Amino acid sequence: MKLSRLLRLQALFYNKNEKRLATAIKHMVGSKPFNLSLYKLAIKHISVAEETINGFKISNERLEYLGDAVLGAVVAEFLFLKFPYRDEGFLTETRSRMVNREALNQIAIKIGLAKVVDIEYKGRNLSSHKSIYGDTLEAIVGAVYLDRGYKFCKRFILKCIIIHFDVDDIISTTSNFKSKIIEWSQKENKEVDFRTISVTGNQRFKEFHVHLYVGGEQLSEGKGPTKKKAEQEASKNACEKLNIAI
Amino acid sequence: MKLSRLLRLQALFYNKNEKRLATAIKHMVGSKPFNLSLYKLAIKHISVAEETINGFKISNERLEYLGDAVLGAVVAEFLFLKFPYRDEGFLTETRSRMVNREALNQIAIKIGLAKVVDIEYKGRNLSSHKSIYGDTLEAIVGAVYLDRGYKFCKRFILKCIIIHFDVDDIISTTSNFKSKIIEWSQKENKEVDFRTISVTGNQRFKEFHVHLYVGGEQLSEGKGPTKKKAEQEASKNACEKLNIAI
Repeated sequence: MKLSRLLRLQALFYNKNEKRLATAIKHMVGSKPFNLSLYKLAIKHISVAEETINGFKISNERLEYLGDAVLGAVVAEFLFLKFPYRDEGFLTETRSRMVNREALNQIAIKIGLAKVVDIEYKGRNLSSHKSIYGDTLEAIVGAVYLDRGYKFCKRFILKCIIIHFDVDDIISTTSNFKSKIIEWSQKENKEVDFRTISVTGNQRFKEFHVHLYVGGEQLSEGKGPTKKKAEQEASKNACEKLNIAI
Repeated sequence: MKLSRLLRLQALFYNKNEKRLATAIKHMVGSKPFNLSLYKLAIKHISVAEETINGFKISNERLEYLGDAVLGAVVAEFLFLKFPYRDEGFLTETRSRMVNREALNQIAIKIGLAKVVDIEYKGRNLSSHKSIYGDTLEAIVGAVYLDRGYKFCKRFILKCIIIHFDVDDIISTTSNFKSKIIEWSQKENKEVDFRTISVTGNQRFKEFHVHLYVGGEQLSEGKGPTKKKAEQEASKNACEKLNIAI
């Protein structure tokens, strides 16, 4: 890592744009970049990438792939430690709600990455790429990881990304599909009924199969290792069918 | 990390089973565990977990969730560095082929974890849990991560898990669905035809929609940002429909 500090000497030869980017990164990440070219690549969306001779486009997609994986691991550990008594189904569900494009888009705007991207794309129409900020944030995570290592990157994710999540809010919407459906049915004055169709498996591993009936008609179904989980699954599917905001 | 070394003093009070487990871990991971209780938890599959008073089962599922995420990140970086000129689609596909239960099962058997599990489950019927070894391997990764940190865990994954993958073999089967289909059609003496149905999107972002016809009848379809990818997708779907080994 010490050798890579030498890369900072490059800072003496930054042009105006590079200086601006380095400062922006410093504000976001908390430290000046060692290897600026990683960050330059990270903000290069495929829609502004130049094609090289052999048809290969140099864009941030590869960094995004790496950043996504690192982000997943750090968020996994964060939730693992935060909720010592919750099962892995809950942890997986909560994580996927945190690490999704829409949520990351919002955070990219909050931490000022959106502005950096907008400057880079000056004069281009971004409306067709809805998740451009979130994608870029993932790529930045990948760049930080390669530039500074896991420990630094983890601190960056915990202090600059996860801090913006309202985890309690995410959780409260994670596992109450059933109550959403019941709430909805009361408003619509319809009867909701969960019927367990079958229970398969042995004594230790069961699979419940549940149908959800609304006003006498079957609306959705769900499966799961417990009756509760199968009902949640059925409720979730019903919420999607009925376009109930979750 | 130095403080955690003190946990090694526990080794003085290990019973016979614990000593055996600690030795097995040392052979697998390359170093004696600091905190043996993590590994004891890691080999506790839900089917042998005791239920506590409030119905909560203490099993390796949470560690498995954590290990899966860490493994994903390390494999992502491994492929990122190994294939500097491949796009993220290829990397994602290859990774999902490496980090799947079947592959991990095989590795768990190779590194001797299966034996440790078998001893733990002595007298129980494991046939209903096909992925028990792979699941346990993921949990062990989670335990190593918590016990020794990311750097050590990464070395463990690279030296003891990834080394058992025949990456070239995985790659050769990753992206040749189209040739599989063509090979099959020649054997079956049928005609295969890819027809591009539509191309949508603007100049930079296109989506190709391809139908695959076998012997004049439409068998499957595929979509993708390039014609090649759409054809691959269609071929993949066809392989699944025709039960062609891939």
